[in-house]
Amino acid sequence: MHSPSKANVIAALEAGGTKFNCALLDTDLNLIAQAAFETTTPAHTLAAVRDFFYQSVATNNAELIAMGIASFGPVDLIPGSPTYGFITNTPKPDWSNTDICGYFARELSVPITFETDVNGAAWGEKVAGAARDLSDFIYVTVGTGIGAGIVVNNQLVRGIRHPEVGHMLMPRDQILDDYAGCCPFHLGCLEGLASGKSIESRWGVSGKFLRANHPAWLVEAQYLALMCANLTQLLAPQKIILGGGVMEQPQLMQMIRDYFLVYMNGYGPAAVLEQTADYIVKTGLNGMAGILGIAELALAQLAQERF
Amino acid sequence: MHSPSKANVIAALEAGGTKFNCALLDTDLNLIAQAAFETTTPAHTLAAVRDFFYQSVATNNAELIAMGIASFGPVDLIPGSPTYGFITNTPKPDWSNTDICGYFARELSVPITFETDVNGAAWGEKVAGAARDLSDFIYVTVGTGIGAGIVVNNQLVRGIRHPEVGHMLMPRDQILDDYAGCCPFHLGCLEGLASGKSIESRWGVSGKFLRANHPAWLVEAQYLALMCANLTQLLAPQKIILGGGVMEQPQLMQMIRDYFLVYMNGYGPAAVLEQTADYIVKTGLNGMAGILGIAELALAQLAQERF
Repeated sequence: MHSPSKANVIAALEAGGTKFNCALLDTDLNLIAQAAFETTTPAHTLAAVRDFFYQSVATNNAELIAMGIASFGPVDLIPGSPTYGFITNTPKPDWSNTDICGYFARELSVPITFETDVNGAAWGEKVAGAARDLSDFIYVTVGTGIGAGIVVNNQLVRGIRHPEVGHMLMPRDQILDDYAGCCPFHLGCLEGLASGKSIESRWGVSGKFLRANHPAWLVEAQYLALMCANLTQLLAPQKIILGGGVMEQPQLMQMIRDYFLVYMNGYGPAAVLEQTADYIVKTGLNGMAGILGIAELALAQLAQERF
Repeated sequence: MHSPSKANVIAALEAGGTKFNCALLDTDLNLIAQAAFETTTPAHTLAAVRDFFYQSVATNNAELIAMGIASFGPVDLIPGSPTYGFITNTPKPDWSNTDICGYFARELSVPITFETDVNGAAWGEKVAGAARDLSDFIYVTVGTGIGAGIVVNNQLVRGIRHPEVGHMLMPRDQILDDYAGCCPFHLGCLEGLASGKSIESRWGVSGKFLRANHPAWLVEAQYLALMCANLTQLLAPQKIILGGGVMEQPQLMQMIRDYFLVYMNGYGPAAVLEQTADYIVKTGLNGMAGILGIAELALAQLAQERF
């Protein structure tokens, strides 16, 4: 039962393949408490998250009114589906068919808003980052894998699953680049050719250990530029925002923009071709995009349900 | 001034590169009169269209309340842009920088709704064709060129221009297929490799004259299947609808579905992989999609403005 003396708070969870970031926020999205837990087994990690929220809500004498979960995938986002709210057939050991939404709905007894990790981060860029005031943009994370959250007409794209931009099949020059790719499904899709995992598989060492002028970054920039060109032709977004571990290489961004112009070859909106530095940009919210985005989505869903 | 004794009617124009299809419809989208005019010069063709609408409105003692125009492109769809409502830098002789919306706004004195030809056709499929009751789908026309209308969350995708799916850069096997492609901007983009124009350029003869088991159709089906695979990974639509002159080859559809499954290689929504015959389909509205779609959009805009 709602106690008017207590402040309303939102639980936000960014469920990643290596760690679960948790935050308690007030209804203006100010941070009240924060914690991170290693992604081990569902039983262990989910209980640690639950305990954090129990304790932080109690410590702050607050009233939990909603939870938002932005999860690594694949996830089932289709309302009414028997596995809605599940992490489905992930290759991550122990996590296939985990009913993550059901767990927190039971344990915390609040309405849950559920999204992919990249949808959460994309929405965070809109709420407080590089996509503020934009109606059409794409957020891409280039890390171990490659994923994207797409916003069209001010709404997240879900379709009958959710975007899987990492599995776009890619143009390539098989003479210049004879690496087969590392995707277990498609070999040379975007993720198979340009993810952090593919860099390690292609060059025998993690990208972290490759010097800034190593040819690896030329190859990487070319594939990410091809991705940007195709996203531009298909959806004509106002901005493409790049994040993730691979993008921490400072030399990459300008190379991507340069190759992008080569691949567009003059065919595109003038605003894009003349202003690539404003069009292909870095994430504006180091590490906080997912938390802020999913918290705002949880608040919005609550408002809609009460309406 | 509105005369209550007259029935309200809508003018719908599908402005194509070879002909302009015109229709007068009542507010339930029933057809009242129809005509087509060859696409010659703007002065000649636009006047013929205007005269048809003058006469058909008068003959039917009707009151014209709105007009919808679905035009070949590139067009400027951005409200507030100085060239909003123009056909912009088209390679079609005489038609660059044609203010098609301005012309009819002046001549017919009604509010104009403006879209790309493929957006109009996509919306028509939603109103009365293969996409009825769908919120997320893609309509692709494969003719002289390749274009697509994309609907996400029940809304047409425009972004800062409009989708240019024909300019997606394509995966290809340069050993099996050493044709360079015919796009003046990108050579081997989708349109450069799989449009009707590229079939003619690649094989030296129009597709109409190639036998049903000619290798041309294997190549064609492969590229269209790659397109379907990438559209599926990016947007997870409920359906992909294919139309246009090239799709009149009856042998193509099943080959596209077969290759599609090869390229997806098991990674996709089960509903798609198990039901490709319901997922990749032909247009449901032979030739009428654009007219119905743009008429409905014009009506919807009118309703919104009056509200």
